[in-house]
Amino acid sequence: MAIAGVIDRERSAARIERDIEHLATADYTLSSEAIRRYAYTPVYRNTLDYFARELERIGFAVSEDAVGTLVGRNRPSGEPAFGVGSHCDSNRNGGKYDGTMGVVTALEVCRLNVELGLGLPLQLISFLEEEGSGFGQMLLGSRIVAQRVTEEDLRERFRATDDGRSFWEHAEEAGYEPARWRECAAVLDGLTGWIELHIEQARVLQDTGNRIGIVDAIAGYVHADVFVYGRGDHAGATPMNLRLDPTLVLAETAVELERLARDAGRGTVGTIGEIEVDPGLINAISSRIRFSLDIRGPEDDVYREVAREIAAYVALTAERRGMRAEYTERQTLAATPMDDGIVSTLEQAAAGTGEPYRRMHSGAAHDTMCVADRVPTAMVFVPCKDGISHHPAEDADPADAALAAEIMLTAIASLR
Amino acid sequence: MAIAGVIDRERSAARIERDIEHLATADYTLSSEAIRRYAYTPVYRNTLDYFARELERIGFAVSEDAVGTLVGRNRPSGEPAFGVGSHCDSNRNGGKYDGTMGVVTALEVCRLNVELGLGLPLQLISFLEEEGSGFGQMLLGSRIVAQRVTEEDLRERFRATDDGRSFWEHAEEAGYEPARWRECAAVLDGLTGWIELHIEQARVLQDTGNRIGIVDAIAGYVHADVFVYGRGDHAGATPMNLRLDPTLVLAETAVELERLARDAGRGTVGTIGEIEVDPGLINAISSRIRFSLDIRGPEDDVYREVAREIAAYVALTAERRGMRAEYTERQTLAATPMDDGIVSTLEQAAAGTGEPYRRMHSGAAHDTMCVADRVPTAMVFVPCKDGISHHPAEDADPADAALAAEIMLTAIASLR
Repeated sequence: MAIAGVIDRERSAARIERDIEHLATADYTLSSEAIRRYAYTPVYRNTLDYFARELERIGFAVSEDAVGTLVGRNRPSGEPAFGVGSHCDSNRNGGKYDGTMGVVTALEVCRLNVELGLGLPLQLISFLEEEGSGFGQMLLGSRIVAQRVTEEDLRERFRATDDGRSFWEHAEEAGYEPARWRECAAVLDGLTGWIELHIEQARVLQDTGNRIGIVDAIAGYVHADVFVYGRGDHAGATPMNLRLDPTLVLAETAVELERLARDAGRGTVGTIGEIEVDPGLINAISSRIRFSLDIRGPEDDVYREVAREIAAYVALTAERRGMRAEYTERQTLAATPMDDGIVSTLEQAAAGTGEPYRRMHSGAAHDTMCVADRVPTAMVFVPCKDGISHHPAEDADPADAALAAEIMLTAIASLR
Repeated sequence: MAIAGVIDRERSAARIERDIEHLATADYTLSSEAIRRYAYTPVYRNTLDYFARELERIGFAVSEDAVGTLVGRNRPSGEPAFGVGSHCDSNRNGGKYDGTMGVVTALEVCRLNVELGLGLPLQLISFLEEEGSGFGQMLLGSRIVAQRVTEEDLRERFRATDDGRSFWEHAEEAGYEPARWRECAAVLDGLTGWIELHIEQARVLQDTGNRIGIVDAIAGYVHADVFVYGRGDHAGATPMNLRLDPTLVLAETAVELERLARDAGRGTVGTIGEIEVDPGLINAISSRIRFSLDIRGPEDDVYREVAREIAAYVALTAERRGMRAEYTERQTLAATPMDDGIVSTLEQAAAGTGEPYRRMHSGAAHDTMCVADRVPTAMVFVPCKDGISHHPAEDADPADAALAAEIMLTAIASLR
């Protein structure tokens, strides 16, 4: 089907831009300085209503699951359909594009399907609370759909950042039925596939001159803390050869982590983002240091080997210097491979447009990780300026999203 | 003069211990958990009174300068005398030995001079506010004596940690005449030499098995801050080759600083004690990092060359990684060489005791730095357990101080 030739990309870009700009106006954000939008606030309600109206306008039946994930379908529930969507909540100091551009582009896919008379069975999903701004829990809506939470989490453990009351209480107050949370799994029933568009949140596409990223995997990660115990001596009076300075274990570890991640290749990255020194005085050798490790990659074997090697390196380096180190993992999450068939179909569709694209993985987490449990999935990335995200300065080009809509629609049509 | 043979070291040690333990009782410290004693407090007044009584008991004339530095002499003012002493204030969470053991040992030197009928002309000084606990100004009393302050400092800039009122106001309230601060220079008039005993505050003597350190220089230092400006990207989504991670400049600099200080030798040390990362999140590459540099040594040329080399290294390393670094010096202070004649005389005296000693430099600053402006000086160190100082756990052996008193007295007698 020669969809590419008949789509008016400029009109798509204009509609995408109109939706995004509209959803950045006062009714849709709690802050005048940023997009601040999260579950069960009036501005979030307005946003869901906007999408519901737009979907109903093109003949979709719209509903919400037991906690507020929005679902729009052009086929009766239970019949097969192809899923598109993302999330429309933001982080608290957010921009206009993260998540929202994905739902808006999915909406454009649905519009084009009607306008071109393709008759493709489609289901749009806007997941709840991807950013965790409301309850400090990332991917919350998609984790509920994937049943990756417990009832105790929802009733007790997950509490609102604003007032400390439970997710459960807030959901009930907003008119939902959290007691029926297990039924949220039905959101994915009948999906034959899933494609989420998202801004890249990094600068790979920009720096390599590509307009489209076809995501073939979402990275898994190891988050860990390293504590090194030295001896807090006088910085002036303690000769170099009598020191137990834990700062040097940090230093050697940072250099080694960079080397290991580079050598591992295959998308592996390693970062030390948090450093705490005790006592932290100019004239005192540190007695203790803590630093974080964030090690990721699309291939579990590869980045986990880096984590193992750096843990061993830390222990050895501390010991060689007469100190003691502790490595403790905070959290690990396996990588999510995308579906080969959808990825290669998206690649063909992208190639057909003649626009520059690349296959890549996602270093950041996305709702698609939860969808992938049960549905063949893929993602499409568009560039965001200078990689800036989670910030009011976030910027992306609606023309790229229009191109992505065309590619997504072409792929879905081919996969039918 | 065969002083060594006739001194009863055990009796000296007992007297030193008695003085130190007495000055650790409730009348002499503001805290029951630590020694906390600083200028113009009642407990500091009590401490000066204790030394005044003990000095008067052995025929010394005792006075205080215009701000409260205590001076005891066994000759009329203006006649030549050899100086001994230290300070008897403490840091706020201090131990019994830092400073106080120096004054107590100087007092023991004066006592032995009488008991042995040596008739040496001696002057004991207990400097005010060495630790800076009262007004946040280290070496304050000796800097006033050395005229290394300005009247504006004393009237306005130096303010009490406790209530923010000026040093001037506090000094007047305590009955002193700060307006006559320039006359404090007379404290050093007529001094033919000066020896200060102090605990080492590090572990060189303990770890090398020596009871006495003969200090031949007090280290100078460079205190500096390094800022490195990177780019705060997403830790998961930013490939290793697209990063500007300032943490790696810190890491390479820490390793290089250790190498440079070790290679420089001659007592050079280099320390990174403060590290601040921004934003300091596990999943974010730092956008900016600040760290401190403390580079010291007894030879100005040597440690300053290390400071120059590390500043150049930081700039080059940042540039090589596509970042920008700033190196700014906070404070520099030149090294203070001790007087060769006094140092070698002390060495001969130490050798004569048959006890293990070593020549060394002081990495920490001391009042002697200010005395050295006008008077030939040296210092004697005694070990402190595990190098712990500025802490209630500070511990030193009165027997070592008694040995030091004997060595000091022998040297002063030889130098006459």
